[in-house]
Amino acid sequence: MLTAELVTVSADPAATGADAALAVGRLLERAGCPLRARRVVPAEEVGVERALRQAAAEGGYVVAVGEGDGAGTLRQALARCLGTRLVLSNRALDLVAGAYAARGHAVPGRAEQLALVPQGATVLAAPEPGEPGLLAEIGDAVVLALPALSATAVSLARAHLLPRLAEASRGPLVLARTLRLVGLDVGAAEAQLQTALRGAEDVSGHVVDTGEECWARLRVRVDSPPRGEAALAALEPALRGAFGIAWYGIDDETLEVVVGRLLRGRGFTVALAESCTGGLVGHRLTQVAGSSAYFERGFVVYSNEAKQALLGVPESVLREHGAVSAPSADAMARGARERAGTDIGVAVTGIAGPDGGTSTKPVGTVFIALADRQGTVVERYRFDRDREGNKALSAVRALDLLRRRCLEAS
Amino acid sequence: MLTAELVTVSADPAATGADAALAVGRLLERAGCPLRARRVVPAEEVGVERALRQAAAEGGYVVAVGEGDGAGTLRQALARCLGTRLVLSNRALDLVAGAYAARGHAVPGRAEQLALVPQGATVLAAPEPGEPGLLAEIGDAVVLALPALSATAVSLARAHLLPRLAEASRGPLVLARTLRLVGLDVGAAEAQLQTALRGAEDVSGHVVDTGEECWARLRVRVDSPPRGEAALAALEPALRGAFGIAWYGIDDETLEVVVGRLLRGRGFTVALAESCTGGLVGHRLTQVAGSSAYFERGFVVYSNEAKQALLGVPESVLREHGAVSAPSADAMARGARERAGTDIGVAVTGIAGPDGGTSTKPVGTVFIALADRQGTVVERYRFDRDREGNKALSAVRALDLLRRRCLEAS
Repeated sequence: MLTAELVTVSADPAATGADAALAVGRLLERAGCPLRARRVVPAEEVGVERALRQAAAEGGYVVAVGEGDGAGTLRQALARCLGTRLVLSNRALDLVAGAYAARGHAVPGRAEQLALVPQGATVLAAPEPGEPGLLAEIGDAVVLALPALSATAVSLARAHLLPRLAEASRGPLVLARTLRLVGLDVGAAEAQLQTALRGAEDVSGHVVDTGEECWARLRVRVDSPPRGEAALAALEPALRGAFGIAWYGIDDETLEVVVGRLLRGRGFTVALAESCTGGLVGHRLTQVAGSSAYFERGFVVYSNEAKQALLGVPESVLREHGAVSAPSADAMARGARERAGTDIGVAVTGIAGPDGGTSTKPVGTVFIALADRQGTVVERYRFDRDREGNKALSAVRALDLLRRRCLEAS
Repeated sequence: MLTAELVTVSADPAATGADAALAVGRLLERAGCPLRARRVVPAEEVGVERALRQAAAEGGYVVAVGEGDGAGTLRQALARCLGTRLVLSNRALDLVAGAYAARGHAVPGRAEQLALVPQGATVLAAPEPGEPGLLAEIGDAVVLALPALSATAVSLARAHLLPRLAEASRGPLVLARTLRLVGLDVGAAEAQLQTALRGAEDVSGHVVDTGEECWARLRVRVDSPPRGEAALAALEPALRGAFGIAWYGIDDETLEVVVGRLLRGRGFTVALAESCTGGLVGHRLTQVAGSSAYFERGFVVYSNEAKQALLGVPESVLREHGAVSAPSADAMARGARERAGTDIGVAVTGIAGPDGGTSTKPVGTVFIALADRQGTVVERYRFDRDREGNKALSAVRALDLLRRRCLEAS
C-alpha cells in the first residue's frame, strides 16, 4: 500500500504556521494515500538531505516544502540526493515570473534563484499562475518539492500527484474520511464508533481529540475510490445512529461553515452577546465569506455596566445572581435579540480563569443562552482547561447551540 | 554541540493541535540547545520505533510525546529500542493517580496502563501533580518520553532536562532568542538585522515571517548562559536602533500581553468597534488574564444599522464615504470611546474578502482608527491575504496602533 511522508524545510522548525506540506498531506489521505510521517527540519543542507534520504527509503511518496530560504536549501539537498547539480530552467523562470505578475508584483532579482532546478528533476506547472513544483525519483520513492504557498502546493499535487496515485493504486488503497463531532466525550465517541463499525470489515476508525471537538477518523480499504465512497455511504445510517446530532460536518467543514449554511437556509439573522469569549464567537462566525447575510452585530459586554447599558440586563439580576449565571445569560441573549432586531440572540458568560472562580462557580463555569421567538434556553457548562481553552470551548458550544436550534427549527 | 530532535506520536499526524513536544523544543532552544528536526508519526509501533532509532542516531536529546493512544505506543516502541519489556511501576501509578486527583477526577481503569514503563527507563516526576515522564538512553542519545499536556511536559523538561543540559554544556552552546516585530516587511527587517549584527561574531540571526508578524531569531554561540545574556545585552542598543518601535516583545510575549501591560501601567481603559474583524481584536485582548481591568466593551458592528445605532456613525458618512472609509473608522472609534466612557476607542473597518472589493477599495483595504482625548488617528492598509489572513493582519495592526499610542503617551 502506498503511503506518503511530508518534509517541511523551515528556517525555524520551532515556529508554527500554515504548513503547505500538511495541506497536501490531507489531500493525499482523502485520495487513499495515508501519511506515514511528517517532519520539519531546519534549512541546513546536510540535515535536509538526510531527511529526504530517510523519507525516500520508505518508498511511496515524499512531499517536501521549502519555506523562505528553505526553498533553496531543499533544491540543493534534492540535487545531492540525485547526485546532480542545479541548473537554470527557463520553464521554471517563466512560471516564477508569471506567479509574481499574477499578484501584481514586480519580479524580484532573486527570481533566477527560484528557477534553479536539480538536473534530472521535472518542472511542474499548476493550472493557475504560481511558482513551479519539482518532481524526481529517489530510489523507489517519488519526491515532490513544492512551494510554500498552500494553495499552489495543493494545486500542484492535485494536478501531478493524484493522477499518479490513481494509476499506481491498482492494488488496495485506503481512503480517509473525517467525521467532525461536537459535544461528545472522546471515550463515549470511541465506543459508539466501534459499535457502528462492527461488521464493516474494510473500515477502521478511531476518535481524535482536537482539544475543542472530537473527530472520528475513518479509513476504508478498497480497490478503487468509488468503492470507498459506496462503503462509506453504506455505513452512514449506522454512523448517524451512533453520533446523532453530534455529527456536524465532514473533512474540512468547520462548525462556522455549517452554522452559516443552516442560518442562511432558514433566513435567520443572529446577534451575539459575549462576555468571557471576548468576541471569539463573532470572530468565528465571520470567518465565513458572506456571513453578513446572517450576522448582524455583536455586543462584547466585558463589564457589568456594558451588560446593563447595551443589553438591558437588570441591575438586580447582576446583584442577586452575578454576571455569570443563568438569569444573566438569559437576559443577555434576549437583550441582544431585541436590541439588534434579529431572529436569534446568543449569549456567553463565564469564568475563563485563571482567577475569578468561587466554590459554587469554579473557574470554567460558563452559561450559554439562546433566545428566539419561542423563548430562551440556557445551558451550563464546566470546562476544565486554561483560559484560552475555556474560551475556545465556550465558543464551540455557543456555535453548536445555534446549530442545534437551527436543526430543530427545520 | 548538543542538539535536540522532537518526536510526536499522534493518532492523527495530519491533525494540528497544541504540541507539547514543540513547547519543550522552544524551552530547549532558549536554554542553548537548538532543534535539529521535529517529526510527527502515527501511533504504530514499528514506525515509532524507527523514528526513535533514527532520531537517537544523531545523539543529543530526543524529546518524544505520545498523544492519546500514542502514549502507549511510545512506551512500547521505547521498550523495543531498549530491548526490554514493559513493567508496572508503582511510582508511576502514584503519579498518575495524583494527576487525576489534582484535577478532581476519579482515577480511570486505564490508569494502570499509563503506569507501564519500559524496564531500564527512569520514571520522572514533575514538581507539581501531573503524569510522569520517562528518561532512557538509546546509544548516545538521552530520550525523554513526556505526557501530552504541555504544562506538565514543559515542567518535566525544566526539572529533569535543563540541569543535564547545563551540566553537559561544558563546550560552546547556542542560546536562541526571538525578537517579536510588528509592522515591518520581512526583507527590510532582514536587512536591518544583518546590519545590527555586523561585527557581533558569535551572534547570528534571521527573520521569520509568521504570517502575521515577523520575528528576528537570534542565536548566540557562547560558553555559558550568563555569557549569552551578556552578549545579547551588549547588542540591544544596535537592535533597538535597527527595529525601533517595531520591536514589541521577546520570546513568548504576545502582542496582547504587551498591550495589556502598557494599558494597565497607564491606567487606560479601552472600547473596541469592530467590523471586518468580527470580534477578533476583542478575543485577542481578552486572552490575557485580568484584561477586564482595561477592556470595557466591544461593539461588533457588522451591519450599517449597527454602526449607526450603537456608535452614532452618521448616515451621511456611510452614504457618502461608505462603511469602509477613513471617516467611518474615525466615527466608529469616537463613538466607541464616547458611548463606553473609556479613555481610548479603537475601530477596524475593511473588506476581508473574498468578495466586496471595488477598483478604489480592493479586497484587503482596511481602515484602523484610534480615538482618545487628543483626537483621532486613522491608518489605511491594503492587505493581500485571504479572508482569514486579512482579518488576522487587521487585528494585529489594531493592537499595534493601541500599543504605539500607549508608548507615545508615556
